[in-house]
Amino acid sequence: MPVITLTTDFGLNDPYVGIMKGVILSICPNARIVDLCHLLPPQDIIAGALTLEASVTYFPDGAVHCAVVDPGVGGSRAAVAVDCGSFYLVGPDNGLFSLVIERHSSMQAVNLTNSAYQLPQVSSTFHGRDIFAPAAAHLAAGALISDLGDPAGPLQRIEIPAPIVEDSSIILSVLHVDRFGNLITNLVQDRLPVLAPGRDAAAMTVEAGSVLIHGISSTYSDVEEGRTVAYFGSSGRLEVAVRNGSASQQLGLVRGAELRLHLPTDGS
Amino acid sequence: MPVITLTTDFGLNDPYVGIMKGVILSICPNARIVDLCHLLPPQDIIAGALTLEASVTYFPDGAVHCAVVDPGVGGSRAAVAVDCGSFYLVGPDNGLFSLVIERHSSMQAVNLTNSAYQLPQVSSTFHGRDIFAPAAAHLAAGALISDLGDPAGPLQRIEIPAPIVEDSSIILSVLHVDRFGNLITNLVQDRLPVLAPGRDAAAMTVEAGSVLIHGISSTYSDVEEGRTVAYFGSSGRLEVAVRNGSASQQLGLVRGAELRLHLPTDGS
Amino acid sequence: MPVITLTTDFGLNDPYVGIMKGVILSICPNARIVDLCHLLPPQDIIAGALTLEASVTYFPDGAVHCAVVDPGVGGSRAAVAVDCGSFYLVGPDNGLFSLVIERHSSMQAVNLTNSAYQLPQVSSTFHGRDIFAPAAAHLAAGALISDLGDPAGPLQRIEIPAPIVEDSSIILSVLHVDRFGNLITNLVQDRLPVLAPGRDAAAMTVEAGSVLIHGISSTYSDVEEGRTVAYFGSSGRLEVAVRNGSASQQLGLVRGAELRLHLPTDGS
Repeated sequence: MPVITLTTDFGLNDPYVGIMKGVILSICPNARIVDLCHLLPPQDIIAGALTLEASVTYFPDGAVHCAVVDPGVGGSRAAVAVDCGSFYLVGPDNGLFSLVIERHSSMQAVNLTNSAYQLPQVSSTFHGRDIFAPAAAHLAAGALISDLGDPAGPLQRIEIPAPIVEDSSIILSVLHVDRFGNLITNLVQDRLPVLAPGRDAAAMTVEAGSVLIHGISSTYSDVEEGRTVAYFGSSGRLEVAVRNGSASQQLGLVRGAELRLHLPTDGS
Repeated sequence: MPVITLTTDFGLNDPYVGIMKGVILSICPNARIVDLCHLLPPQDIIAGALTLEASVTYFPDGAVHCAVVDPGVGGSRAAVAVDCGSFYLVGPDNGLFSLVIERHSSMQAVNLTNSAYQLPQVSSTFHGRDIFAPAAAHLAAGALISDLGDPAGPLQRIEIPAPIVEDSSIILSVLHVDRFGNLITNLVQDRLPVLAPGRDAAAMTVEAGSVLIHGISSTYSDVEEGRTVAYFGSSGRLEVAVRNGSASQQLGLVRGAELRLHLPTDGS
Repeated sequence: MPVITLTTDFGLNDPYVGIMKGVILSICPNARIVDLCHLLPPQDIIAGALTLEASVTYFPDGAVHCAVVDPGVGGSRAAVAVDCGSFYLVGPDNGLFSLVIERHSSMQAVNLTNSAYQLPQVSSTFHGRDIFAPAAAHLAAGALISDLGDPAGPLQRIEIPAPIVEDSSIILSVLHVDRFGNLITNLVQDRLPVLAPGRDAAAMTVEAGSVLIHGISSTYSDVEEGRTVAYFGSSGRLEVAVRNGSASQQLGLVRGAELRLHLPTDGS
């Protein structure tokens, strides 16, 4: 049974997402459709990119991930499908797929130009319904990606602020605040040994607002209720949390805030 | 695989919708259930009618659309199922289906009086669970609509304010504001040639609050960021939007607000 | 087709729930997944317990109910699966299952200690993904509960305030306020004949804030719009509502508020 995931900024007050599912089931009746998130901040491509990055590896091989955060709908941006080997991406070519493609090889990308794989009438405002849902459904139903359109050039990338390495510290940036108030940063666990070779994470200090957090823990259960803690979270990124509380509220920090990771002296 | 859609004002803070799905899967184990919207404003029948109007044509033939916005639950309003030829409607007879029935012929309607197609114990407060979900599931599982109860008389209609044609303009009304702040009006694209025969849409002007919008465009990409634009949206209704912004906020207009469509002089 | 329900406090702004579904479909591709609620107040175990209590009886036999409200994740609380005869429960052993187990017999409970039924890498912060979703999926796919781990001792219970019987009245407590502003209390319908033997519910008076409600009705349609009404709601608990309005707002009562049920004199 083919799996299709949906990620949008359409919200849940309107039937836009349900309509996409109707289109999908009309083309691929046995598709299993999973919602990743529909409450992305309107037109927030970075939030969409983080959602996909955190999710794609947990789905069965062959899953089609259809994402629509599309401030340029009806304009000149391309519509694309991407074969990443073990899964597909479908959506506007505006940087939404940047983070996934950094981690997974893109085998093949096409522009969704073949109108035989679109709804008969394509509106200028709802390509999720008219172009992206049909493309995802046809892929799930077994169409070849090359059927959907012509080969695409290199995909658009968005700039995500990178950690800035200074002498004895690294400046981090909060990319996202989740429902629990956890601050999710731009430091991926795999990158730490590259940025701070030979340094012991347990001896680092995270400066978050007016608070100093000593050591990177493995979980927030390491600290008492109400205390701040830094750890690599479930998506592989450094997070700052307050156990059973909201770090965002307690520290007064929101998306875009800077944190500073103080490194121990060499070899310590 | 039969498809059932659900549209309610139950919200997402309680398990009411999930319970309806449990009832459906107990009766029709292979039903595919799609949420259209559960965040309709409480008891807002017009919002429910607009949701169904925008959605039903995008689902596979035979889909059952179950909608529960039901201020009269437990009172004397009838519970109905309607066969519209290529799909079914199930819900309270309170006007929820007005807009769909205007556009599609109603072949046959029944009152849901046969208790063999209800839960054994019917509460006075949750007919979504006890009457409507079972009826939808039995239809999806192949029951005849005539099994569910006796023929119903004409269905209730709700009054939706119609566009008011004056000498050189048409007064429109905002029926809905979506998540992006777009204003969705009571002017359906098909009606424009009837209301303003021979006039060129590109030469019309939409007066929305203190703003004059020149011409009806095909998409919001036609204007620069932050500018207002009028176009026929994905549901076929005239909408006013601000590109990459909220028209509702920027113009200070909410549901119920009046807009005025100024017509060009004859033949222009 | 096996059914799995999900109940969490993860919210809908992040892909956490969608990721759990990806894990489930990777293990049990034909699982039907139903959301009960993901907007439980963060770490509110009582709200989770009420959700499960209201829902489990409406699902097909064999359903797996996976619930994750887990303030102790990564700490010492156990992870359990419970066989209740006609359905399974999966989640942290922190009281989430108290109300369901009071009403249904627990046949067998195990600690989820068998790492063969977990994801290869178990994080300290997201057991929903790494432990609970896999356990639920394996049960749905036919694993024996005894495969998942060793027998568990008695499960944790949470204290829910009980109705307090006084001479001529019973003190009740508001456990939950739903989307419509209805006040849902700790008085279960089955318990009333035990707490007030031989008294007529229609002759009782509910004191809610400054309002006296005469008689327990069968539905809110029994009163006019805007009037308060008390009745046993769809979950079997005494509720106070305002017809077509919000009892919570109108009476100024929220979760935790006390109501008083005045009993008629003996035999009346």
